[in-house]
Amino acid sequence: MPIQTPSPLAQELIRGIKVGDTRSLAKAITLLESRNEDKKTRGNEVLASLQSKNPATSRKIAFTGPPGAGKSTLIETIGLALATQGYTIAVITIDPSSPISGGSLLADKTRMPRLSNCSKAFIRPSSSGKGHLGGITPATLDVINLIEAAGYDFILVETIGIGQNEIDIKDLVDQLILVLPPTAGDELQGLKKGITEVVDLIAVNKHDDLLKKPAELTAMQYESALNATTNYKVPVILCSARQGTGILEIIEFMQSYKVTLQERQQKLLHLLERVAPQEMLLALMRNKKIQQLIGQQKLAIEQQSSSLKRSISVLVTYLESCLERDSK
Amino acid sequence: MPIQTPSPLAQELIRGIKVGDTRSLAKAITLLESRNEDKKTRGNEVLASLQSKNPATSRKIAFTGPPGAGKSTLIETIGLALATQGYTIAVITIDPSSPISGGSLLADKTRMPRLSNCSKAFIRPSSSGKGHLGGITPATLDVINLIEAAGYDFILVETIGIGQNEIDIKDLVDQLILVLPPTAGDELQGLKKGITEVVDLIAVNKHDDLLKKPAELTAMQYESALNATTNYKVPVILCSARQGTGILEIIEFMQSYKVTLQERQQKLLHLLERVAPQEMLLALMRNKKIQQLIGQQKLAIEQQSSSLKRSISVLVTYLESCLERDSK
Repeated sequence: MPIQTPSPLAQELIRGIKVGDTRSLAKAITLLESRNEDKKTRGNEVLASLQSKNPATSRKIAFTGPPGAGKSTLIETIGLALATQGYTIAVITIDPSSPISGGSLLADKTRMPRLSNCSKAFIRPSSSGKGHLGGITPATLDVINLIEAAGYDFILVETIGIGQNEIDIKDLVDQLILVLPPTAGDELQGLKKGITEVVDLIAVNKHDDLLKKPAELTAMQYESALNATTNYKVPVILCSARQGTGILEIIEFMQSYKVTLQERQQKLLHLLERVAPQEMLLALMRNKKIQQLIGQQKLAIEQQSSSLKRSISVLVTYLESCLERDSK
Repeated sequence: MPIQTPSPLAQELIRGIKVGDTRSLAKAITLLESRNEDKKTRGNEVLASLQSKNPATSRKIAFTGPPGAGKSTLIETIGLALATQGYTIAVITIDPSSPISGGSLLADKTRMPRLSNCSKAFIRPSSSGKGHLGGITPATLDVINLIEAAGYDFILVETIGIGQNEIDIKDLVDQLILVLPPTAGDELQGLKKGITEVVDLIAVNKHDDLLKKPAELTAMQYESALNATTNYKVPVILCSARQGTGILEIIEFMQSYKVTLQERQQKLLHLLERVAPQEMLLALMRNKKIQQLIGQQKLAIEQQSSSLKRSISVLVTYLESCLERDSK
């Protein structure tokens, strides 16, 4: 893609982001997340321009875990500690849009009141696009890249659950931290499976007051369960986001963590596999002829002159004929 | 689609299903759920043949709700009660495949031990396809249709969460029952939103022993919260799957529930909108030329001669050119 002169709007936002104006950054993110092609193009102009000038140096860490683990509070506490150390921090909170799932029960805008007032922090709830589940979309990748190009030292991503998304959060960040509440032993069984392959650190939160002992027991159980089977040890850290204990250990781990070039490449390949089909599907649904065909089939179903299966077959056959024609 | 003579395998399964052989039914479902095109075609032969002969008369009811609500036990108790009344029952349990989400924590194969031993019941865990989230796939629709064509009186679908899937469970069934555990009042807020639009009945489960009072309070709160704002009243039923209370009321509601032709049409249109893009995407990814292009772009990323964004753009542009050529 040749770099063209950005539009006036993009230029204005680029200037703003360069001088640290968070409103410009927020606006550029909104453009990247837009479903409007024109707006998206403006957003991509900002992204391309900033990326061409700034090296990618952010540390990107995702925090995942079940509802009630205290992810938001932990991120807030870590963010404040990083700010005290002089770093700039961006927080992206990703929420699934389901009205009934556990996730959205906890979704409110003011989960990080202290960090919101910190001048070194930028907090952005990610708007999950319709038709994208779990909240991570191809646009999330662009948003993270934009924030990185804007020069933030740390990008902390809050996400609910792993494996719920078409795009794996692990591929968008350097490091994945699983935040867990003190739990009963019987939940261990379900969590064990495959966990060591995806998680870089486990933080057992709420290690305070009445939960101190249960947290310690939980940490011990995870440690022995997780590390008995594999060569790679997943560290388990006890912490209390509320009381601020264990936070510096987590930050130390975040800072010492190294991603190899090979890992980075692997993540890019995963992303291509996941994002390319989605972007192709969007291109498909943008196509006028396809839209027209779908409209016809809807009418046929309404008039009971076609079955669902037949209508789908008509659409698939049309697409196949388009692809076939080219390959001859 | 013209009906051709089914393959020998399909014919054998059709014969088996007609005489009530559940192993034949299970095998046909496996074919429908297969990612192998040949197997899928065999499965579709069975489906088409049975559908052409048998009217669709099953009552299809989905049960959703948060983990720990007791959905499995409730479905089992309802299923046993229906069997006692002389009905045949098929149960489909849909599990998201995430290793860490709350859902799979509860996923084990022997959740309905009593119903498993009932000769009038057929229980089938749905295998969620890779790349499909929340577990509901276009194949789920085929599976439900096949079970219906096999002549079951009731099809009970267990699913976790609503709005987590590309395909809305509501569009696959006649009726959606939300199963809730006795809860604290502060969770009400999150559940209220939009609930009356999707749910036909709320069953507050665990109305027994120590939870009797909390369950009653919960039911009362939902009733007043849900029905204060809209004209349509969502019934709230107190039940105990363990003790068997409230079960007959739920069955009565299930039996009295009528789906209008207009609602059925609406569901088909929704399904077309959701399933058609997914099937087109599958056709896209099956295409040799597209596979080849993706392979090339992966290589380019590995050799660092292309960026992720550029590679995606190459693929999208190719697809657009195929579609464009046709419309001229």
